Amino acid sequence: MSGKLRVSLTSKLLKYARVDVPFCAEDFGLDHAFDLISYADPQSFYHVLDEPSSQFKLPQADTDDSAEENQLQMCRSVEVYADDGCGTTITALAAGQLQVQVVGRFCPVVNEPYMMGRIACVSLLSSLYTMGVSGQSVLMQLTISRKLTELQRDVFLPLMVRGFEDCCKEADVKISGQQVERSRWLSIGGVALGFYDTSKKFIVQEHAVPGDVLVLTKPLGTHEAVSAFGRLQEPKTRAKILRHISEQAVGEAYRQAIKSMGLLNRVNSFLMNIYNAHAATAIGEYGFMQHAEALARRQQENVSFCITNIPVIAGMQLISKRLVKGLSPEISGGLLICMPLEQALPFIDQFKEAVGYQPWIVGSVKSGRKTVYISKDARIISQFPDNCIIELDE
Amino acid sequence: MSGKLRVSLTSKLLKYARVDVPFCAEDFGLDHAFDLISYADPQSFYHVLDEPSSQFKLPQADTDDSAEENQLQMCRSVEVYADDGCGTTITALAAGQLQVQVVGRFCPVVNEPYMMGRIACVSLLSSLYTMGVSGQSVLMQLTISRKLTELQRDVFLPLMVRGFEDCCKEADVKISGQQVERSRWLSIGGVALGFYDTSKKFIVQEHAVPGDVLVLTKPLGTHEAVSAFGRLQEPKTRAKILRHISEQAVGEAYRQAIKSMGLLNRVNSFLMNIYNAHAATAIGEYGFMQHAEALARRQQENVSFCITNIPVIAGMQLISKRLVKGLSPEISGGLLICMPLEQALPFIDQFKEAVGYQPWIVGSVKSGRKTVYISKDARIISQFPDNCIIELDE
Repeated sequence: MSGKLRVSLTSKLLKYARVDVPFCAEDFGLDHAFDLISYADPQSFYHVLDEPSSQFKLPQADTDDSAEENQLQMCRSVEVYADDGCGTTITALAAGQLQVQVVGRFCPVVNEPYMMGRIACVSLLSSLYTMGVSGQSVLMQLTISRKLTELQRDVFLPLMVRGFEDCCKEADVKISGQQVERSRWLSIGGVALGFYDTSKKFIVQEHAVPGDVLVLTKPLGTHEAVSAFGRLQEPKTRAKILRHISEQAVGEAYRQAIKSMGLLNRVNSFLMNIYNAHAATAIGEYGFMQHAEALARRQQENVSFCITNIPVIAGMQLISKRLVKGLSPEISGGLLICMPLEQALPFIDQFKEAVGYQPWIVGSVKSGRKTVYISKDARIISQFPDNCIIELDE
Repeated sequence: MSGKLRVSLTSKLLKYARVDVPFCAEDFGLDHAFDLISYADPQSFYHVLDEPSSQFKLPQADTDDSAEENQLQMCRSVEVYADDGCGTTITALAAGQLQVQVVGRFCPVVNEPYMMGRIACVSLLSSLYTMGVSGQSVLMQLTISRKLTELQRDVFLPLMVRGFEDCCKEADVKISGQQVERSRWLSIGGVALGFYDTSKKFIVQEHAVPGDVLVLTKPLGTHEAVSAFGRLQEPKTRAKILRHISEQAVGEAYRQAIKSMGLLNRVNSFLMNIYNAHAATAIGEYGFMQHAEALARRQQENVSFCITNIPVIAGMQLISKRLVKGLSPEISGGLLICMPLEQALPFIDQFKEAVGYQPWIVGSVKSGRKTVYISKDARIISQFPDNCIIELDE
């Protein structure tokens, strides 16, 4: 039922165990029709969200859950809002320590096994980072699809695991073990733990006040870029994409998305503690607006978030109308952070120094009814090179 | 793929959420042919071990594992011997803390859902207790068999979960969350964590010296009792059992086994720290001898274990020849502890005071070649009432 996976990376595999080397299925004699993402559970978020009709809603926190007598309260520990598809719990241990636990498994969303391992790890740890907690240990969890061929297993799994491991190492998180199971679908993720001394400050995610600014640390459009790149390979959908944007531009957007999704949100966690963040959330599969709305709802003060800037992966605004409304799902997105303006400026400087690019001030916190709205004169920020624009679909 | 289970216990179910009330399937209109254990993975330990031909061996610790270059070392943290079917790892966290993690899932071995939840919890936590570590938090993991009917789900799951929860509460372990998955088979277990300050003593399990005594904290024969009780219900096997032992005696042995399997090994952990235990292991599915042998092999000094007493659940020695050789699998067995004689005596006294019965000195540690042998004049200890013995099968 469960076991341990010990796999070796041949030098051929090692070549692809890097962020900057796109995976090449042909190199292993693998058929494109059975790419990594074909083993994703079709019930998983990104697939569902691909259909514009579906009303996939972020569950609201039960505020007035009148616990019936004899009802099993499954998590007897303090539970916090889990707004990123990850179950997050905080448990008071003996000796004044808080254990912050996040749980998440991720089906393949890109056809690059190494990057998929990284993306899963980044997504998982983000839930810790939104609370300003650094990860300490991860129990890796893998489900291996029974439908994988032996060749696919030998190529996909070592690379996925290595991607996950490399990312843990980068995050200074120890891997405390591994659970492997056979399943219908392929997934990778796990249980990540962080610890917090109760004597220290804890980012409780509900202290935004009017005057705060909203900082977003990764551009939107990851899912749109991955999806557009996939549709380019399909003869049926290829022409439709190319009506709006060049093949080269999609390729560039895809590589930018891959890089962004594989980037840890760790530095945020560190800087948020220094620069007095009032609240934060990770942007994930529910899309920018839903995550922002969930964050607004849980604030103690009556505040609303006014969005004035929408940073997107270059070109993606040309092919997706929902993206510029903040409605596209994101894969392993950045953090949305509420903090005082005077703290945001040094935060942005230090972030840039550590990560290499500048995060965006995307809006501000105003008095309001715990809602989020996009300002009428909001700007779309995109460093898209002009010569790649072909035509706008109005 | 995963989710949270929120189930309620009706008053009818609550009646069976107790150690001392045997589960009654008829009370819920459930068919005996589809008892809880029929949803156990047939590949799981107890089933395999039921066949005397199978050579199910406890894996030996890789001592000279010449790690090939580029080989994925799945657990980069320090790994300890996992001798009870649970994966145990020790991870050095920041700030001088050690995280002890045990992972285990258990398929139904008894037809009592509440007790099965308890047994899974006891088995899981035992792995922490062998190291003298107290449990702090548990992530509960459930796999729900797709073959369960709705009625079975509504009866089995709430009781199993409640049993697990009650046991956690008793052990003062917080439940930090829950992972639920659909699967072919039913199982319950999870990931348990304990923490150890590196400045404190840690029971490293390898310091037995000649002169130590061996203490066993639960009698052997749990699996034999459960199995005999099951065979009594089958017309085919019933007669064979009754040739050796009365129905009443099997029933008593079964209730004793149930009670024993549901008993936490927690007090051991506490007392082992006080009374200077040199090494310990939990007795589980590989049976007494294999677990003892694994413990002997890992000792630093050249010692052997000489077994002079074999405490068994009353009557089980009459129906199982392998039991008295220490070869029967055990379910949620006790701890086998090496400690100085002068420490064992107060240990036994305090154990009795806390738990209600006296653990057994089952042998002694001698100079030797890291083996285990049963002394020629070893005694079988059984409080079996004479009038229940029917016939010995010689």
